[in-house]
Amino acid sequence: MFYHVQNLINPIVDDQPDPSAANALQEGLGGQFGEMRTMMQYLFQSFNFRGDGIPYLDLIQGIGIEEISHVELITKTISRLLDGAPEYHGGKFDVPGKGGAATMDMAKEQQNPHHFIVGAQGALPVDAAGNPWSGSYVHNHGNLVLDLMDNLVLESTGRTQKCRIYQMSSNKTLRATVAFLIARDEAHEMAFAKALETLGIDWAKALPIPKFDSSQYPEVKKLIDAGINREQYTFRLDGSQMEKIFQGSAPANDGTELVTLKEPKESYPIPPAPERPEEFAPGLDPELQELADALNEFKEKTVKKMEKKAGPNPRSKK
Amino acid sequence: MFYHVQNLINPIVDDQPDPSAANALQEGLGGQFGEMRTMMQYLFQSFNFRGDGIPYLDLIQGIGIEEISHVELITKTISRLLDGAPEYHGGKFDVPGKGGAATMDMAKEQQNPHHFIVGAQGALPVDAAGNPWSGSYVHNHGNLVLDLMDNLVLESTGRTQKCRIYQMSSNKTLRATVAFLIARDEAHEMAFAKALETLGIDWAKALPIPKFDSSQYPEVKKLIDAGINREQYTFRLDGSQMEKIFQGSAPANDGTELVTLKEPKESYPIPPAPERPEEFAPGLDPELQELADALNEFKEKTVKKMEKKAGPNPRSKK
Amino acid sequence: MFYHVQNLINPIVDDQPDPSAANALQEGLGGQFGEMRTMMQYLFQSFNFRGDGIPYLDLIQGIGIEEISHVELITKTISRLLDGAPEYHGGKFDVPGKGGAATMDMAKEQQNPHHFIVGAQGALPVDAAGNPWSGSYVHNHGNLVLDLMDNLVLESTGRTQKCRIYQMSSNKTLRATVAFLIARDEAHEMAFAKALETLGIDWAKALPIPKFDSSQYPEVKKLIDAGINREQYTFRLDGSQMEKIFQGSAPANDGTELVTLKEPKESYPIPPAPERPEEFAPGLDPELQELADALNEFKEKTVKKMEKKAGPNPRSKK
Amino acid sequence: MFYHVQNLINPIVDDQPDPSAANALQEGLGGQFGEMRTMMQYLFQSFNFRGDGIPYLDLIQGIGIEEISHVELITKTISRLLDGAPEYHGGKFDVPGKGGAATMDMAKEQQNPHHFIVGAQGALPVDAAGNPWSGSYVHNHGNLVLDLMDNLVLESTGRTQKCRIYQMSSNKTLRATVAFLIARDEAHEMAFAKALETLGIDWAKALPIPKFDSSQYPEVKKLIDAGINREQYTFRLDGSQMEKIFQGSAPANDGTELVTLKEPKESYPIPPAPERPEEFAPGLDPELQELADALNEFKEKTVKKMEKKAGPNPRSKK
Amino acid sequence: MFYHVQNLINPIVDDQPDPSAANALQEGLGGQFGEMRTMMQYLFQSFNFRGDGIPYLDLIQGIGIEEISHVELITKTISRLLDGAPEYHGGKFDVPGKGGAATMDMAKEQQNPHHFIVGAQGALPVDAAGNPWSGSYVHNHGNLVLDLMDNLVLESTGRTQKCRIYQMSSNKTLRATVAFLIARDEAHEMAFAKALETLGIDWAKALPIPKFDSSQYPEVKKLIDAGINREQYTFRLDGSQMEKIFQGSAPANDGTELVTLKEPKESYPIPPAPERPEEFAPGLDPELQELADALNEFKEKTVKKMEKKAGPNPRSKK
Amino acid sequence: MFYHVQNLINPIVDDQPDPSAANALQEGLGGQFGEMRTMMQYLFQSFNFRGDGIPYLDLIQGIGIEEISHVELITKTISRLLDGAPEYHGGKFDVPGKGGAATMDMAKEQQNPHHFIVGAQGALPVDAAGNPWSGSYVHNHGNLVLDLMDNLVLESTGRTQKCRIYQMSSNKTLRATVAFLIARDEAHEMAFAKALETLGIDWAKALPIPKFDSSQYPEVKKLIDAGINREQYTFRLDGSQMEKIFQGSAPANDGTELVTLKEPKESYPIPPAPERPEEFAPGLDPELQELADALNEFKEKTVKKMEKKAGPNPRSKK
Repeated sequence: MFYHVQNLINPIVDDQPDPSAANALQEGLGGQFGEMRTMMQYLFQSFNFRGDGIPYLDLIQGIGIEEISHVELITKTISRLLDGAPEYHGGKFDVPGKGGAATMDMAKEQQNPHHFIVGAQGALPVDAAGNPWSGSYVHNHGNLVLDLMDNLVLESTGRTQKCRIYQMSSNKTLRATVAFLIARDEAHEMAFAKALETLGIDWAKALPIPKFDSSQYPEVKKLIDAGINREQYTFRLDGSQMEKIFQGSAPANDGTELVTLKEPKESYPIPPAPERPEEFAPGLDPELQELADALNEFKEKTVKKMEKKAGPNPRSKK
Repeated sequence: MFYHVQNLINPIVDDQPDPSAANALQEGLGGQFGEMRTMMQYLFQSFNFRGDGIPYLDLIQGIGIEEISHVELITKTISRLLDGAPEYHGGKFDVPGKGGAATMDMAKEQQNPHHFIVGAQGALPVDAAGNPWSGSYVHNHGNLVLDLMDNLVLESTGRTQKCRIYQMSSNKTLRATVAFLIARDEAHEMAFAKALETLGIDWAKALPIPKFDSSQYPEVKKLIDAGINREQYTFRLDGSQMEKIFQGSAPANDGTELVTLKEPKESYPIPPAPERPEEFAPGLDPELQELADALNEFKEKTVKKMEKKAGPNPRSKK
Repeated sequence: MFYHVQNLINPIVDDQPDPSAANALQEGLGGQFGEMRTMMQYLFQSFNFRGDGIPYLDLIQGIGIEEISHVELITKTISRLLDGAPEYHGGKFDVPGKGGAATMDMAKEQQNPHHFIVGAQGALPVDAAGNPWSGSYVHNHGNLVLDLMDNLVLESTGRTQKCRIYQMSSNKTLRATVAFLIARDEAHEMAFAKALETLGIDWAKALPIPKFDSSQYPEVKKLIDAGINREQYTFRLDGSQMEKIFQGSAPANDGTELVTLKEPKESYPIPPAPERPEEFAPGLDPELQELADALNEFKEKTVKKMEKKAGPNPRSKK
Repeated sequence: MFYHVQNLINPIVDDQPDPSAANALQEGLGGQFGEMRTMMQYLFQSFNFRGDGIPYLDLIQGIGIEEISHVELITKTISRLLDGAPEYHGGKFDVPGKGGAATMDMAKEQQNPHHFIVGAQGALPVDAAGNPWSGSYVHNHGNLVLDLMDNLVLESTGRTQKCRIYQMSSNKTLRATVAFLIARDEAHEMAFAKALETLGIDWAKALPIPKFDSSQYPEVKKLIDAGINREQYTFRLDGSQMEKIFQGSAPANDGTELVTLKEPKESYPIPPAPERPEEFAPGLDPELQELADALNEFKEKTVKKMEKKAGPNPRSKK
Repeated sequence: MFYHVQNLINPIVDDQPDPSAANALQEGLGGQFGEMRTMMQYLFQSFNFRGDGIPYLDLIQGIGIEEISHVELITKTISRLLDGAPEYHGGKFDVPGKGGAATMDMAKEQQNPHHFIVGAQGALPVDAAGNPWSGSYVHNHGNLVLDLMDNLVLESTGRTQKCRIYQMSSNKTLRATVAFLIARDEAHEMAFAKALETLGIDWAKALPIPKFDSSQYPEVKKLIDAGINREQYTFRLDGSQMEKIFQGSAPANDGTELVTLKEPKESYPIPPAPERPEEFAPGLDPELQELADALNEFKEKTVKKMEKKAGPNPRSKK
Repeated sequence: MFYHVQNLINPIVDDQPDPSAANALQEGLGGQFGEMRTMMQYLFQSFNFRGDGIPYLDLIQGIGIEEISHVELITKTISRLLDGAPEYHGGKFDVPGKGGAATMDMAKEQQNPHHFIVGAQGALPVDAAGNPWSGSYVHNHGNLVLDLMDNLVLESTGRTQKCRIYQMSSNKTLRATVAFLIARDEAHEMAFAKALETLGIDWAKALPIPKFDSSQYPEVKKLIDAGINREQYTFRLDGSQMEKIFQGSAPANDGTELVTLKEPKESYPIPPAPERPEEFAPGLDPELQELADALNEFKEKTVKKMEKKAGPNPRSKK
């Protein structure tokens, strides 16, 4: 059974919108090696798990739960990169075709016009070439060694693709999220490689994939220096045996140690997303808005509330 | 951010395996109107939500979180229906081709041979005709009224299809899960219809879809009598404003009331799934098994532990 | 612009239901070489037509219009083959799970369970293996000679597949529709081959594909004897130049002549399709039915009306 | 059975070609909520219709027939926007690579190069991201209330997307067609909402979706002022009972009335489409052209004839 | 550049036809982890290879060439299993609907009716659930370590699935081909694992996947005893450096040695496939057959010739 | 059984990189009428061939073998057009994010960002709109006449599309490969048309499709002058009867003759492809590179070796 708090696993960093960066980032969300797959693959593997290897089950499932939060983070990042793209100047109840013109004028030339026609400047479950995500991406062979190796390839590919995306744009919103995912993918590479190490495999110097001088990617370096790439968090509220695997020397064999934290990762507030009248999002006209407001006069205090909502969670970073 | 406990939202009821019932149930998991879609559609809608209609956001997202647990439940149910299909008599380290013959002998005649070739008698992210789930199923129009209406159609269709599946087999494992989902789909129909009611729409006698005399479906009747079809649970650990919508008279206009519970739904233990040597699942031979056991001698005590693990969760039903 | 009369281009012949025959016939509807493709391919080719070759345009489009009526016919035939499958004994407002049990009991073992879960025993836009129809099937190269040759291959393949389907079942409902389509596909082979003949090609004895002794297929023989395989009808209400092509000796070079008729083909009444309570189709409970009836007391007289509706069309066969 | 006249349901307005506008418009043709789906969904629903609710059948089917004419209109509009894109200066028998260079020089940079490689500057059965249309888009649940609600969501989404496309380009060819479709989608929203109103639902102020000040979209305003968004035409040559539903106050509850016209909508001439030698369309070299001409010397008089052909239809607008 | 001899890489063993076994075997041909993928993945990786690691390139490409012959073998095996299914008694120019009835009578009940409708009892580029093969299955990351690991997972999965298929039928035609592919997949597992071993990884006891007591699978045991699972053949006519990798102790660490042979594997004659009149395959009527025969009176001597053709190849096994 | 030499069937001509030309060329590789389809369609047709028409079998299969070399050529051409796009200045062990910036800076704006995210500037099995290749493209009807006509349409379409692509860019790398494929597609049109001619069909002036003044396409003219469009090569090492068909006057009826050569086409060296550090291709860091080098000190001499490797093949052009 699953639970949620309305916070993000990593902060969204503010920068200008950039629709083609948003489109590149779609690969990390809905691509064949993106977060929707990692989430679904690990959940299916854990739901269909056979046998009594609980620490292996707990490791796979524990990462799967984290991946849902990655889907949440990357979705929010894409929405942010598309928002107001490239120069927003519409307001609530603004007239479509007037204030919204700037955004819509450039929309049809973008990499994926669906961001503006099908969605309201929000993330889509597709890849960077516009192909919808497919259930055929989910690999669940049933054989433990094989599933672990498949997962290792998946994380290594996801990390390689994100390193390529990182280089495609210097936008800070893009790079903050991508850098975090690069570091976490590395931690997950370590997790599956370590699980295979418990079955005897020695990885020597093959990992992580790809290897690079992190000082060239400052946002990544900062996270690595903080150890984000060697930690695993506990999102299981009833405990987990994954620590039996995720501990000791990292299978990258670089002198680092794996650390399983008892706590979930700290969380961060979600920046509010404004309405976009030119997209009819959310599409309430004054009459309907009045009815919505009548629900509980929640309107004026909402932004404040949203920030406050993020607040009560004791794990949230101030 | 998401969390998990290793329990199910509804109990798995024991009965004989039934591979073609498992295949029919795949529609409820990976079909165009199945639980993978409801889960993804509501998560995308909530992650991309625009504007300050927090109660609407909380309602959509709250249901989306529950749907992840539905995916978990239906996946486990399908695995169970496939397990040992139709007569299991293999043991750990049994010789494939010997003990496993009975299962494999009938495998190629089944509705979807992938259950036995691609997976190890586990659920797949596909529908009842074997088509993989597609990201194109996810509808997130951005317009609030439109998204709510789309969600209402989605829940109504899901419920209609599950009522049809219910009639296809008298298997208790199938019916227990399907009956629960029929009742919950009805609650979700109520939720989205009520949200539209707050914007002025009066549904008269049109809901729920389909209407039927529940006394004909005893498993459903029992859940309806217990009020499962008018409750909404709170899976948000930091509170939620969805109660502002999900309260008062049900939009079915049948005299019932909607109730938002402060607590998540109680949870139930997960029955262990045995290894299947003829599927090479999990595939550890004695040498690898020894290494796995060495992790922490967890082997002998595991079944007991799994049951105990389900125990510590205070929300779990004894 | 398109118009319609509520009649069929060929009569539905009565026989027992046969779900697996219905499934085989899906190939003729939603398969890569089925009627949905012929309809869409010729419509796209005619809408995108370039240049002043009006007789070629009129020929392609004229066949395209007829294909819509083929889609209508084959859809009705599939629904009929699925209806009451295999022994219907439910009535209006019957209780699902009771009277409907017979149908649903066998539903999950059928070739495509979608006929019973997703549809209400009706035709689906899919092929005989359950794959949804795809826009990629539509070939519109823009080059006239190439489009004509592609169309010839399309009709020849459609005819070959239908000849194979004919042999798969002796069900009269199936065979009557398939035999008609075999004869019409042959007429369309002649049409596109003749258009190429006007550009110089001599087909010698290569056509039609496949060639067979029609006396072995009695339903086909009867239609061939009546000349159905050498006629082209006029569904254009404002005239057409296709006759400039579709005339003279048939390109099968078998001594037959092509005839363009000024009139559309005669039409036939549509047999009514009963409600299926176990499918919740149409799903009106007594309260909603009363509202629907109140529209105009149309209920009691409806079957009579449906037959009468088919009547007023002067082209309809008595 | 279906019939045709070689005219359009709305005039094509002349303007410069605009390939990226053509690509955006593909969403309205081959997108998940485009005209190919509305056409196919309503045809399948009417072909598979169960029970005796003739007015509902006639309404669904009547709209379905109109949608074929929408597919025709939007296809022609896309071809027009692509034609000569961006500056045409080739003539019949011109040498590819010479006169055609301007078009082909920019072709590979366009949103969807298929418009120039696969088609000959004509419309394709794909969406704005290049995905082919899929049969899985067609929803035909069999349950009447559910099908009507699904159709209402479909029309509302189609209309929302077209309003977004309208804002993306000020090209008059695009806007004339899109404005017409926006008005007609609104009429169809009214139709399905009214059908649900006959079953008791009161829509209050929720419709149409989206609501906007039409005076901001001058082409739409003009059509609304003429009542195009509250009319339903009769494309059934043998009469129809849809008027029993499509009458009385509009479910938008804005004081307007629904009007069912006995006649089809007036029709408009189809502008001729020139050959494109650089696309080998139609691809007749002088030898083959001579053979084609010999068919009936139709060549010199053709443009005149095409305009004349559009003429004889008494419903055609002069 | 590629060359061919008209022989098979392994003999087809004679047994009764078995259409559902043929369908299961489709997974090994057109499945996500089947031979079409291995062939295409290794060819793409070798065509796109970067850098100067020639032995790695030669290894990947060498296996890719062999996989084309695997596609040939498995295709022939499926055709054989479908041929005359289940009891063939038609002859050349037999009348469809007469002699062919037995085959066609059971065709519509088979797992995939496409084998009889779309193909003429021949293999299809689809998987065991009828899904067409997709280019998205081909993984070519560009990174050498990653590509090698992906290939190892691919071979291990292919082998696991084939071991499952082996158990599904005792048909000798199926088992002979599957056993050969199990042994070769193991050799290819060794190849990619060894390539990774040259970069430092020690696989301990993890390979091959799956491990089993081969004496339980007699057809596999025989091949293993002959060393087929530790050999690599040379299909490069201009030499290859793959031997620099494929030599020394096997990475299964079971005391076996890897051997690169200078020669291609011996080859075997292709059994002739009879015409199937009920499928119109090849579809020549007496007139066309006469023309075909006139080509060179090849007819009477053909079967003899086919066997003789297989003869001249000196590598062919007598 | 298949064999290979490490050479190309046509030389790669040097020019600047051009990513959008590379993307257009993807249609010729992974498009519905591209080389992956011709290769697979002819291989499936020959593997599933029925009856004793050996010359027809040998013709279809002979062309199929050549198509594998076309896939190789077009893949290499695309990689070349993407390489260093648009200005390469990275070296081995260069730091990603530094030297590689130029390439990555423009990557996300390209037609298909997958060329840079999913692949390492290499060809993909997709079309020019980014859709993955599908097994449904392969047509193998089983009927000989029908298969030959389908193949003729396939070659004619492939040639038409390549003629369009030729006009889209003046890049010499693109044009050299496309011109060669245009000439070869014409030879294959002749082959299938001639096979149909042996069955009686007279093509008059309809072929080839499209017809054009080749002097306008200088690269094509040069190949036609050399007779490349009327030759068929022998890639069968054990002889072939295809010459019985591919001889005599060409079915284009233009006075040319068809010539079957006993030898394969001459072959050409493969230009080396440098590593791309910004793509982590091949991704060996100094430690791993040292291990790879230790294999056999092959490093320093490699470029020389690669050229030398191309040399020993006596068929290779100097």
